[in-house]
Amino acid sequence: MTPLSSNGKNSSPPWTQPGSVGLVQTQYFTFAQPPHELALESGATLGPVTLAYETYGALNAGRSNAILIVHALTGDAHIAGYHTPEDAKPGWWDEAVGPGKMYDTDRYFVICSNIIGGCQGSTGPRSINPATGRPYGLSFPVITIRDIVEAQRHLIDHLGIERLLAVVGGSMGGMQALDWAARYPDRVAACLPIATCARSSAQTIALNEVGRQAIYADPRWRRGDYYGSEPPNDGLALARMIGHITYMSDTSMREKFGRRLQTRERLGFDFETDFAVESYLRYRGGSFPNRFDANSYLYVTKAIDYFDMAADYGGDLAESFKRIKARFLVLSFTSDWLYPSYQSQEIVRALLKNGLDVTYFDIESDYGHDSFLVEVELLTEMIGSFLARVYREETRRRTRRETLARP
Amino acid sequence: MTPLSSNGKNSSPPWTQPGSVGLVQTQYFTFAQPPHELALESGATLGPVTLAYETYGALNAGRSNAILIVHALTGDAHIAGYHTPEDAKPGWWDEAVGPGKMYDTDRYFVICSNIIGGCQGSTGPRSINPATGRPYGLSFPVITIRDIVEAQRHLIDHLGIERLLAVVGGSMGGMQALDWAARYPDRVAACLPIATCARSSAQTIALNEVGRQAIYADPRWRRGDYYGSEPPNDGLALARMIGHITYMSDTSMREKFGRRLQTRERLGFDFETDFAVESYLRYRGGSFPNRFDANSYLYVTKAIDYFDMAADYGGDLAESFKRIKARFLVLSFTSDWLYPSYQSQEIVRALLKNGLDVTYFDIESDYGHDSFLVEVELLTEMIGSFLARVYREETRRRTRRETLARP
Repeated sequence: MTPLSSNGKNSSPPWTQPGSVGLVQTQYFTFAQPPHELALESGATLGPVTLAYETYGALNAGRSNAILIVHALTGDAHIAGYHTPEDAKPGWWDEAVGPGKMYDTDRYFVICSNIIGGCQGSTGPRSINPATGRPYGLSFPVITIRDIVEAQRHLIDHLGIERLLAVVGGSMGGMQALDWAARYPDRVAACLPIATCARSSAQTIALNEVGRQAIYADPRWRRGDYYGSEPPNDGLALARMIGHITYMSDTSMREKFGRRLQTRERLGFDFETDFAVESYLRYRGGSFPNRFDANSYLYVTKAIDYFDMAADYGGDLAESFKRIKARFLVLSFTSDWLYPSYQSQEIVRALLKNGLDVTYFDIESDYGHDSFLVEVELLTEMIGSFLARVYREETRRRTRRETLARP
Repeated sequence: MTPLSSNGKNSSPPWTQPGSVGLVQTQYFTFAQPPHELALESGATLGPVTLAYETYGALNAGRSNAILIVHALTGDAHIAGYHTPEDAKPGWWDEAVGPGKMYDTDRYFVICSNIIGGCQGSTGPRSINPATGRPYGLSFPVITIRDIVEAQRHLIDHLGIERLLAVVGGSMGGMQALDWAARYPDRVAACLPIATCARSSAQTIALNEVGRQAIYADPRWRRGDYYGSEPPNDGLALARMIGHITYMSDTSMREKFGRRLQTRERLGFDFETDFAVESYLRYRGGSFPNRFDANSYLYVTKAIDYFDMAADYGGDLAESFKRIKARFLVLSFTSDWLYPSYQSQEIVRALLKNGLDVTYFDIESDYGHDSFLVEVELLTEMIGSFLARVYREETRRRTRRETLARP
């Protein structure tokens, strides 16, 4: 996406800074119009389907420089840049996407796709069900990581890209990346699953279930039928607070908050906010419903819980990776207790069993699961050089093919 | 407490088994009658105060064999034995208290005291406020670990015990044990803080705050004024679910539940219970309000959050331990992420700095925070021999004193 011209008055607003992708727009792709609905893993169908997405940089003539970045639980398509000159904040991983950055838009064509089931421009439970003319609510079908990827595959087809240079994702994004590599082995040159797992653990399911229970328990949830009335913001805020605790680590919380009091000189001996960490959680939880839909939270967490690459292979992960051809960069973080390193190592072992090209780093970091968004410098180095290598090899591969194809 | 005679028809009901303390009764001690109310750390006063407690074994003539066991967040005075022949379950740590057990009632006089602020026979927010004739609700004063211990000290005085052989507690019980040792150095021969800390961490506060927010968000909570109407069971159940996740470990959850489905053959693609771990949490959460009061959950978690031994000593833990004389057995568990081992090690370092007699074990266990209740065999060995040593030394000390005192 080309940056739009400035109409700001500030001499150097953030979106004109070097390294920024500038002003960008979210785009929308609609497909699976009835009767050609998307067939879902559950057996249900969904259509029409809209995906929100953004692109940055330019697709090269050989269409060989496309990187698909897929997001975590509450992410969206707006990964970098600014939508308007007035935007206070850029996209959610702006440090990573732009000229000269981790995903160098001078070199690569970066696509960030929102997910189905979400609430940020793509078809989800808040969308209108064409069969009833009313929002889906709980009549929206339960979707899986596979369904999310299948919708993205339609988008990549639409963009005319036969083979992705890389599919990258952290957390739930990593699940999508793995699924892409396993089900479209010829369409993915490299796969970068970061701070993720090949099958959701009992602990992950438990934490997600408590978040869902918080939403169910909010009387405004009304079994998902709250559109047009007050949404279950208390329940959603609670779910988010639990989430935020799991994204940090004991160490990062100690360093960031410790036992510091928020606005008081001393303990209040009441149930108002005493500690800074309480204030942080209340703020983060309370603001979350402004940008996220409670039903989407239910659907997306369910997709995470259902994720198990080995389910159709009798639990044999290596077997489920059999068709994979992509090169891998697998990254985990020592203080991530939501997706502990052993889960990435399980992925690495199963890839190695299949003789695949795997680079793995267990990165020493105190930021817990959030590390994958915070450790920008280290990731820029690792991911940047890995992508450069893959791009070199892919270019050589294509040149060889073209040479061979010449009469 | 002497076991009552049997009236059961079963030839060998559980309470007649060797090792069981048999049939027991909860006792109640009321003190701090106005105008002699208990002065609380907040500056408020509370009275009258009732403590529920149970005792097992017999106090010896020298009154030198008394062990005070103090409980965690949701525990009660009923640690061992059965209240009635019909009871399906014994007290909450029955494996540990009885003839020949970890706390050998053939040898020691074991006291288990409930806490103020609780809801299981002791004065708490559900109790009647004598000033209004109605339940306290949120007019109950915010209490601290120090206040809880101060109430117990009145009980120990009432029982005529000048010096406790040991104060023992796991989790929040460990906080009470530390406070006992620090504020009554001459009245505690040995202190056993297990799976605990000397100051609550940001992560602990965060987890407790989310539990409280779950209760606040339940519309039936009504700012604590729900006695006589429907209690906020949904909120309390949610708080308990979060708690249960923190009491286990990733490993113990994987081993206990994994991705096992509960009653279904395959995924349901709906929002009913799919996984065994979901069913476990729903059950544990759902049954908790039968035995616990939501307001008590608020007060007791607040007491945990406020706990900081070093607060009055400019953060210097060793300084705050300066008056301590007790021998220590400190225990932590490698998989406990709620009270990680480094927190026990912080206690140990501060004790050693004061030249105290400290034994410390970091026990290799997969059961997470629950380990302190689960690893009975190992604890019986460690605690049993430690108590035997202390009892020997105490007996020698008293004999020496008596000899010296003779004319």
